[in-house]
Amino acid sequence: MTGRLIAIEGPDGCGKSTQAALLAARLDAVLSREPGGTAVGERLRAVLIDATVDLDLRAEALLMAAARAQHVAEVIAPALASGRDVVVDRFSHSSLAYQGFGRGLRIDELRWMSDWATGGRWPDIVVLLDRRAGLPLGAVDPGDRFETAGADFTRRVAEGFHLLAAADAARWRVIDGEGSIDEVGDRVWHAVET
Amino acid sequence: MTGRLIAIEGPDGCGKSTQAALLAARLDAVLSREPGGTAVGERLRAVLIDATVDLDLRAEALLMAAARAQHVAEVIAPALASGRDVVVDRFSHSSLAYQGFGRGLRIDELRWMSDWATGGRWPDIVVLLDRRAGLPLGAVDPGDRFETAGADFTRRVAEGFHLLAAADAARWRVIDGEGSIDEVGDRVWHAVET
Repeated sequence: MTGRLIAIEGPDGCGKSTQAALLAARLDAVLSREPGGTAVGERLRAVLIDATVDLDLRAEALLMAAARAQHVAEVIAPALASGRDVVVDRFSHSSLAYQGFGRGLRIDELRWMSDWATGGRWPDIVVLLDRRAGLPLGAVDPGDRFETAGADFTRRVAEGFHLLAAADAARWRVIDGEGSIDEVGDRVWHAVET
Repeated sequence: MTGRLIAIEGPDGCGKSTQAALLAARLDAVLSREPGGTAVGERLRAVLIDATVDLDLRAEALLMAAARAQHVAEVIAPALASGRDVVVDRFSHSSLAYQGFGRGLRIDELRWMSDWATGGRWPDIVVLLDRRAGLPLGAVDPGDRFETAGADFTRRVAEGFHLLAAADAARWRVIDGEGSIDEVGDRVWHAVET
């Protein structure tokens, strides 16, 4: 039996990484993240988030897709084939939210690119951590090109996630991200298991 | 007046780099190369050619396109807009030959990807250096993933270049690459200027 691919999505600072780790531990799933997840992917991640690089928008989108192709081939597909669940901190929908809604590239083209990169692999379940009350501004990393892209960019990305979730309700679980780590973790767990 | 984009193409070891430099000097053109051409591109090139990396085929194609997007945005488009010619040692057709004919990915999809990466920019002239008599085997770099991909791969790439040239004869100049550097250089120069 093949495993499930579960993506945790949301803006920077919403608690994704913590919740992805918690969920993976509860499910005894493989835990991974994007961009990254492989040795090649981590080298690409370093280029992608480097705030000193004036990266072209299309190069950014293609690099994300390249890291994703390697991630699927090397980590995700083998784990799923062996029957293990995989929990990823970000996956293809982050490209649609960040490079599409955030940067203004066409969503249909980005969707095609992720589909091509992954051989048509999309998450079975996407958990969107919703922190509409506001994200912790103190967490912004001045060396991270995405975290320093400004309030308008962050708002467009957050809205993009909600539009994507609304358009594909069978796949998405929108979870209230306010509260303690354990409270949010319980909500995520119930949303995934029901 | 906008400059011309001139690509020098051919298999590894055919003398491309030497001829690209010679042509650029004669034309007073900007000289560049792929993958690479920018600081970001050179970081990606290091990942791409690293023979110790088991790089997924789709990741390879997407990385090539990412380096190309950055190259066009940062170097090629500004130079052309300022009226300078640009000579590139490899460009989009190398992706079709290597990742398409060589690796077996679909040519139409790779064409779309290069088109997307470059905003629709294709070379005005492509010079194919033809060395059917055989390439210098001694030049193979054991640390280069492409140069060590084997004789069948190299043959498919070389045939791919000829098929691409035959299908688009108005853009391509197939040049006999046998002879001294100056002899070949004169042929390239005449092919570009007529």
